[in-house]
Amino acid sequence: MYFEDFEVGQRFSTPARTVTEADVVNFAGVSGDYNPIHTDAEFAKETPFGQRIAHGLLVLSMLTGLRQRAGHFEGTIIAWMEIRNYRFLKPVFIGDTVRGESEIVEKRETSKPDRGILVQRVKVYNQRGEVVQEGEFVTLVRRRPA
Amino acid sequence: MYFEDFEVGQRFSTPARTVTEADVVNFAGVSGDYNPIHTDAEFAKETPFGQRIAHGLLVLSMLTGLRQRAGHFEGTIIAWMEIRNYRFLKPVFIGDTVRGESEIVEKRETSKPDRGILVQRVKVYNQRGEVVQEGEFVTLVRRRPA
Repeated sequence: MYFEDFEVGQRFSTPARTVTEADVVNFAGVSGDYNPIHTDAEFAKETPFGQRIAHGLLVLSMLTGLRQRAGHFEGTIIAWMEIRNYRFLKPVFIGDTVRGESEIVEKRETSKPDRGILVQRVKVYNQRGEVVQEGEFVTLVRRRPA
Repeated sequence: MYFEDFEVGQRFSTPARTVTEADVVNFAGVSGDYNPIHTDAEFAKETPFGQRIAHGLLVLSMLTGLRQRAGHFEGTIIAWMEIRNYRFLKPVFIGDTVRGESEIVEKRETSKPDRGILVQRVKVYNQRGEVVQEGEFVTLVRRRPA
């Protein structure tokens, strides 16, 4: 979809995805974040969570992939400009299943005629329907070629 | 380091890390974000960047890993609460080398005596010393056991 195709108030849902132990292990490898709260099951038993939690950024990264699978930005997103007020509200555990929702909250033209700015309110839900993360994404999206 | 050990104005530097093609491929796998701007070299030739760019969240994820390697939060970070005003300022390409800097900008006690809140201003630099990403992290950090 091009910039022109989006409207303020539009909502998009993504597919869902189960957060597996493999995802946490792989994300630790890619990011280099081996904080014991994510990678040490024995340490994690002694924390308030009682078990390893998924990296907050792993879940945020999965949200971007789920949004991508929904297809609305395929080939038309130019750049991601900003993440605003993105809150990690609840822990996500291995075995939880997450899905995303996005709502267009602002749409702005730029000085360049080939692109526009979209602000979206995004939320990640777990399998119990609880919002585990939420925030705003600001993206630069291609306009339809004349 | 515990909450008590941090002071407003303190700065921390991380090691550096080269963003490789393998990192971009692995991050696409973990996140599921196969947007062609990250994974299709031929498509990317026709974009304003002229080549594939690293996912913005890959670089942010690497920052968290580099911060982790610096060791200040080993075993004492309880949770990541929020990312504020995190801006993707410049593209990061395969072969670029990134490093991070953090500054404590706010330190706040909570109602619970075993933890406190730290707000940090973070920046990611490339090998030319350009700031490629910057924003604020809000984290919950353990206080020193009495």
